[in-house]
Amino acid sequence: MSEPLFEKIALVGIGLIGSSLARAVRQNGLAGHIAISTRSADTLRRAEELGLGDTYTTDAAQAVRDADLVIVSVPVGASEAVAKQIAPALKKGAILTDVGSTKTSVIAQMQPHVPQGVHFIPGHPLAGTENSGPDAGFADLFQNRWCIFTPLPGTDPAALEKLSQFWRRCGANIDTMDADHHDMTLAIVSHLPHIIAYNIVGTADDLETVTKSEVIKYSASGFRDFTRLAASDPTMWRDVCLHNKDAILEMLARFSEDLASLQRAIRWGDGEKLFELFTRTRAVRRSIIEAGQEVDAPNFGRQEIAQPVST
Amino acid sequence: MSEPLFEKIALVGIGLIGSSLARAVRQNGLAGHIAISTRSADTLRRAEELGLGDTYTTDAAQAVRDADLVIVSVPVGASEAVAKQIAPALKKGAILTDVGSTKTSVIAQMQPHVPQGVHFIPGHPLAGTENSGPDAGFADLFQNRWCIFTPLPGTDPAALEKLSQFWRRCGANIDTMDADHHDMTLAIVSHLPHIIAYNIVGTADDLETVTKSEVIKYSASGFRDFTRLAASDPTMWRDVCLHNKDAILEMLARFSEDLASLQRAIRWGDGEKLFELFTRTRAVRRSIIEAGQEVDAPNFGRQEIAQPVST
Repeated sequence: MSEPLFEKIALVGIGLIGSSLARAVRQNGLAGHIAISTRSADTLRRAEELGLGDTYTTDAAQAVRDADLVIVSVPVGASEAVAKQIAPALKKGAILTDVGSTKTSVIAQMQPHVPQGVHFIPGHPLAGTENSGPDAGFADLFQNRWCIFTPLPGTDPAALEKLSQFWRRCGANIDTMDADHHDMTLAIVSHLPHIIAYNIVGTADDLETVTKSEVIKYSASGFRDFTRLAASDPTMWRDVCLHNKDAILEMLARFSEDLASLQRAIRWGDGEKLFELFTRTRAVRRSIIEAGQEVDAPNFGRQEIAQPVST
Repeated sequence: MSEPLFEKIALVGIGLIGSSLARAVRQNGLAGHIAISTRSADTLRRAEELGLGDTYTTDAAQAVRDADLVIVSVPVGASEAVAKQIAPALKKGAILTDVGSTKTSVIAQMQPHVPQGVHFIPGHPLAGTENSGPDAGFADLFQNRWCIFTPLPGTDPAALEKLSQFWRRCGANIDTMDADHHDMTLAIVSHLPHIIAYNIVGTADDLETVTKSEVIKYSASGFRDFTRLAASDPTMWRDVCLHNKDAILEMLARFSEDLASLQRAIRWGDGEKLFELFTRTRAVRRSIIEAGQEVDAPNFGRQEIAQPVST
């Protein structure tokens, strides 16, 4: 095992991302000491049972004391409270980063509280699953996924390089862009898909003419693909909606406009228009597979579902 | 191998479903003879290269002559043309069925042409992948999937039982309902999800502020889940939209109404409402997994994507 990158790493928040980081740090020998902090005593106990770190505390300020790298992995709406709490305890020269899905809001919440001499570098690893909590994490979560930094003007290049090295050793590829562009990009590739998935699952759940058991029974004909995103952590996604509002509303407006036009084509039997759209979208998946971001197997390569189902 | 259920089976159409049926029939020894017919000479040649049947013809009437079971697997918009073409050649006592995703329209298109003494039993196996054509099929496609019949009044129970036996031996579970209810149910579990997926992929493809390569690169954060459905066969889905119009417009109206309400909650920062919806939808996926219709693994159990991706 190579020499640790950081003497002490503090993880504030130990859900899916935080606990995956803890495992990746341990597996790759990236820290001499892992300090874990979370607000909930139950979650903290679970993290300790799983042996995710070296020290455990519900006091975030205590966890970050003397840490060389502090990673905040909390729902984005909690960013300001965490920043206020840890600011006085941050070590001079420490790197402070986060993993939030919205960047403009996180910067606005955290930056004012960051002390002089601390390197605040906002980050966002594009990785996750529909599961949440410390049990859901795994060391390979970041393998071949992108980690996007949105550095502020005047960021120390050495600190940025060291943080990049950290994420690379967790398996991620690094990208850098400004926070506004990040928020707009994520609104289309991540936030809108989740909102649409939540919405369609809600619509199906509310029907009177088709029963819930029918929706579930026949879900393999398309519906079930949406349920994965719609099973994601409600707190995290509530906060994303509240903290990337403008970009999300912009994408929702475009989506609805396009849907109204598609609906009109269906109503008026415009087969050519339907065929043109349905052909164009096919190429997009091919590109994603070619970019190595998706498996090239029908049905997502889902394993066979072996058990027969009773009626 | 047990005795064949039918002396001769004719498959009209040899795409994903038709070619999966050919393979399932062969593998399970369900027919003495498999006659294959498709309009396109190229597709027919490919079916012959793959050895999917015993005889091959571009003339559907010739294929169905003397057949005990005729399965029409064509885009639903082609149902009437096929019915007209094969009607004079159908054997008395034969079972005629289809696999179309809309039933009211298929019945309206085919029934008037079915000769006296032929058992027409509309059917719909809820199975498929995003791939199409004779190469895309596989014998296990129907394993543990539902096959829904929408029998007409006066259907011969013996013929229905024999067709049920056929599908069971292909691995499917049988359900029966009326055509209207089928069309409404499929509109929510299958047609709306496909239309929404096509739409969101189209919206993303049209953006100016976020490039196509960014959409593809960062697709693992949610968007890629939609691209599977949006890669489905354009002809088939054009026809579904045109032939289940009323039920689809009804579901689209409900979806849009719900989305408008969700959009309002985002605009006005109604975190409680968002949290309530996002929590409720989580339970739906759990039910689908419990019903054996989905894999219980994060990310659909997608295999690891091994190759590193260049920037």
